[in-house]
Amino acid sequence: MKIAVLGGGSWATALIKILSEKAVSIKWWMRDTEAIEKIKKFKHNPDYLSSVELNLKKVKPSPDLEEVIRDSDWVIAAIPAAFLALALEKLPKDFFKNKKIVSGVKGLIPDSNLLVTDYFNKHYGVPKSDLLAIAGPCHAEEIALEKHSFLTIACEDLENADTFARQLQCRFVNASCIADLDGAEYAAILKNIVALACGISHGLGSGDNFQAVLVSNAMIEIEEFLSQKTPLKRQINRSGYLGDLLVTCYSQFSRNRTFGKMIGKGYSVKTAQIELKMIAEGYYATKGMFEIYKNMNVEMPILAFVHEVLYENKPLKQSFELLKHKLV
Amino acid sequence: MKIAVLGGGSWATALIKILSEKAVSIKWWMRDTEAIEKIKKFKHNPDYLSSVELNLKKVKPSPDLEEVIRDSDWVIAAIPAAFLALALEKLPKDFFKNKKIVSGVKGLIPDSNLLVTDYFNKHYGVPKSDLLAIAGPCHAEEIALEKHSFLTIACEDLENADTFARQLQCRFVNASCIADLDGAEYAAILKNIVALACGISHGLGSGDNFQAVLVSNAMIEIEEFLSQKTPLKRQINRSGYLGDLLVTCYSQFSRNRTFGKMIGKGYSVKTAQIELKMIAEGYYATKGMFEIYKNMNVEMPILAFVHEVLYENKPLKQSFELLKHKLV
Repeated sequence: MKIAVLGGGSWATALIKILSEKAVSIKWWMRDTEAIEKIKKFKHNPDYLSSVELNLKKVKPSPDLEEVIRDSDWVIAAIPAAFLALALEKLPKDFFKNKKIVSGVKGLIPDSNLLVTDYFNKHYGVPKSDLLAIAGPCHAEEIALEKHSFLTIACEDLENADTFARQLQCRFVNASCIADLDGAEYAAILKNIVALACGISHGLGSGDNFQAVLVSNAMIEIEEFLSQKTPLKRQINRSGYLGDLLVTCYSQFSRNRTFGKMIGKGYSVKTAQIELKMIAEGYYATKGMFEIYKNMNVEMPILAFVHEVLYENKPLKQSFELLKHKLV
Repeated sequence: MKIAVLGGGSWATALIKILSEKAVSIKWWMRDTEAIEKIKKFKHNPDYLSSVELNLKKVKPSPDLEEVIRDSDWVIAAIPAAFLALALEKLPKDFFKNKKIVSGVKGLIPDSNLLVTDYFNKHYGVPKSDLLAIAGPCHAEEIALEKHSFLTIACEDLENADTFARQLQCRFVNASCIADLDGAEYAAILKNIVALACGISHGLGSGDNFQAVLVSNAMIEIEEFLSQKTPLKRQINRSGYLGDLLVTCYSQFSRNRTFGKMIGKGYSVKTAQIELKMIAEGYYATKGMFEIYKNMNVEMPILAFVHEVLYENKPLKQSFELLKHKLV
């Protein structure tokens, strides 16, 4: 199997570690040429999961995007959604022909609000059956430690899902398959927004009792959204949906939760951004998902609350009190 | 409203704090006469939630069980299931006539494996419509801190549920109602077993990724059990079910989780019991629930795993590996 991995962050590094357990050839694209030199020299990604020793017999880092993709049958995109279109913009329209594309991204394409796999479908003509997504529950940090983890591979063509899942299955990873591509992607985006809400409520002084209320109501919200947006019989409490939400919301390290907590404590978005040196994925996701939600007939009080707080300049405590009345 | 609260532990103390927000008369029975004297003198329960100041104008502690119950219209039982029958055994069979009984207990009556409300129904002839149960998600410790919490009141008669819910509703508690009495009680019992499983897996070295898999699969298991044992249209992800499971499984203070963790690290049940000076509720619940489960046709791999580990003397790691293959 010839695989391209695009992106140099934690999740890309974790996927490379997992894939290296099998006999594969992995070309690894990242923009940062300095990191590539360090990886070649020290067999470690200097910036992310630096404890992971990389097997350079199987993994070839390269700054040449075209070459990396051209030589591969499977392309795993692990670049933040905000920068994905920009990173790929110079590639010809037919460049992904006959390739399988796997999204490891949790976010919408800006402006168009497209799912990542829909972007490959609409922009590069990749058929839906050749598009896949990876869902958690999976902290990259625990992959580095080889803690046993479950991944869920979503693809409308379950044979393709199975082929890829077998590539991930190893002594510390269990991979299973679902046909719910769009559902898996939307759920993964929504979980970051819920993590923001958990952070905000924590910043406002709420405790674990209330976080449990938020997370359980979020599952109701996610299920209702999915059943309207992409109807399908799905087991919403399997690990790929509920489990993925849980690791994100209960992690002390979640950037979305930390960002939300600062907002809850009264920081402005700008100040939180400067302080944390980044904007959490959920911040952009909130805008995109709210635009999708506005055109639907579904109740999403948690999404609406986070949008009010981040984009509508509503008084925080008042919005929070109103939210409480909508939860069960 | 004249209320009796039976039991002197954390949960009883938390309920008394909540109920004292309203204009009520509360008689509080506990066995420990020394604690009663201290409460009367210092307005604090010396052993549990001792930071809570008790309003003795509304709350009257007493060691006289018969008097406490006789003078009340509503009786809240907050005694561990293992000791409940023993505590009440001297009362005449018609003693609870025309009273509403609220279970704040999470466990089965030993030997008979009856739900607590079923015990009052079968043993004292209290009609099902006068029996209620309180579900979380609610750490008593956060009630002491007045952290905003949600409670769910279950009763087949929703008017009774609503009457009691309005009694609990206050500036830091939101109480809502469901008609699913048996379901709420079974779910509350099963959550302690899941917390044991989380502790065991943690003791064996698993991390947050795997805990998320366990908890999400537990929800599938609980829903399947309930839909067979007590069929009803229920929203399984509302806070009274999913949220209650979450606070229990994600609490560092859960006795079930701590007990499970010691088992996972290789302690025997006896050693864990000596070390922790108690046996977790989930230990007894596992035995009772497994006996119920054996006579049903439902897949409950997590319950079966915990039972294997605690009661069947199976090799721990081997059982754990087998469990992993049954999760999704």
